[in-house]
Amino acid sequence: MLPLRDTHTARTVLPRVIKQPEIRSAELLDCAQRLFFERGYDNTTVNDIIREAGLSKGAFYHYFVSKEALLEALAARLARDSIAELRPLLEDPSLDAIGRINALFSGARRLNIELAPRLRKTFSMLFRPENIALFHRVDQAGRELAMPMFTDLLRKGSEEGVLDVPDPEAFAEMLLQLRLIFRDVMYQATRMAERGNVDGAVWMLEERLRLYGIAFERLLKLPDGTIESAQPGFARAFLEADP
Amino acid sequence: MLPLRDTHTARTVLPRVIKQPEIRSAELLDCAQRLFFERGYDNTTVNDIIREAGLSKGAFYHYFVSKEALLEALAARLARDSIAELRPLLEDPSLDAIGRINALFSGARRLNIELAPRLRKTFSMLFRPENIALFHRVDQAGRELAMPMFTDLLRKGSEEGVLDVPDPEAFAEMLLQLRLIFRDVMYQATRMAERGNVDGAVWMLEERLRLYGIAFERLLKLPDGTIESAQPGFARAFLEADP
Repeated sequence: MLPLRDTHTARTVLPRVIKQPEIRSAELLDCAQRLFFERGYDNTTVNDIIREAGLSKGAFYHYFVSKEALLEALAARLARDSIAELRPLLEDPSLDAIGRINALFSGARRLNIELAPRLRKTFSMLFRPENIALFHRVDQAGRELAMPMFTDLLRKGSEEGVLDVPDPEAFAEMLLQLRLIFRDVMYQATRMAERGNVDGAVWMLEERLRLYGIAFERLLKLPDGTIESAQPGFARAFLEADP
Repeated sequence: MLPLRDTHTARTVLPRVIKQPEIRSAELLDCAQRLFFERGYDNTTVNDIIREAGLSKGAFYHYFVSKEALLEALAARLARDSIAELRPLLEDPSLDAIGRINALFSGARRLNIELAPRLRKTFSMLFRPENIALFHRVDQAGRELAMPMFTDLLRKGSEEGVLDVPDPEAFAEMLLQLRLIFRDVMYQATRMAERGNVDGAVWMLEERLRLYGIAFERLLKLPDGTIESAQPGFARAFLEADP
């Protein structure tokens, strides 16, 4: 699962001068994100957001036609930030396709641990059954950005003869689809850990990461054990990291 | 994609005597389904449903706490009917695991063609981006019924030595996850065909079915060409079948 990297939340202190539109809209996104994470999307109104941002309703609707539209912009921003963090790993010329995939997995693990408390909160909001539409929008934004990157990775790997896919684009799509099993796995693991069964949650998450790695290898016709999707200690570090 | 088999829509003529609760609730489901297919879920109100069913609002809420709850029951019923149709194929003792998987694919194709006009209508409603929550509910109901069947299929196939999976349940889940690429593919193919580009739609759908079959083989470590996920003529028959 790509973590949602976010470099915007720390509130910037700005002098109250006339602001550029992109600053105002970024501020609205910051406030909305903070509220969505705290209270959930459904429990946050446009009024809450403008109160938090200190803006008028007119100003809000100048930037976003609806709360939904704001959410779409927010999802796109979160996805963009995560991808920006991971992209350099995929462009390291010293690595072959397997090295790049493993760098991607290890980069994602590093980010997940670093941002663990925030991510756990996001996941437990985003992965709730009633937030499926919201989850889908965030996932869609991430998928659209990840697709060209993944397709390119598979195409180059095929050309290098490192992996074997009959259609890089379709296989990129299937790999991205497959990662969605972690929506349920992460939701269950987080809830198990919250209820005190950390060992059970750790075991479940690590086992699923291992099996996902096997699926990944098989789909790309890579030798067994090539993909390092799991790493001892990762699941515990993710589930136990304190805010 | 498992087709949604439905054996309930033909309106049953019953004498106006006191009806069993399960008959009343089945009638409500029939009416709701007809309206959802015709107008879409969002455009159908509880009032529309009770008018169609000739029942009072009180009677409706006696059976279902909300339109959402009715939808869940409807999704479960559609899933149950589709599975009931395909289950015997999976239990044919004369087949090995590969034979059973291929019987499942060919059974699904047969059902898809037989029900094509109705399914195309359902899909074009269910796969619209704004109906994602609805789609997810229907998918969830199908997945819950299909999971034990698929897990059992993979477990037996492993025991027979026909296929190789490290964890039948997790791999059943991944295969069921993977089939969701057809949500977008079917949506796009149906729209292309509606706009007159039937050849393009046929090509896209057949190609994706072929690639899905390859992914299926790879995940289960089956020899190339074992799985018959595509069949010449299927996509055209599905996309062109007249009501």
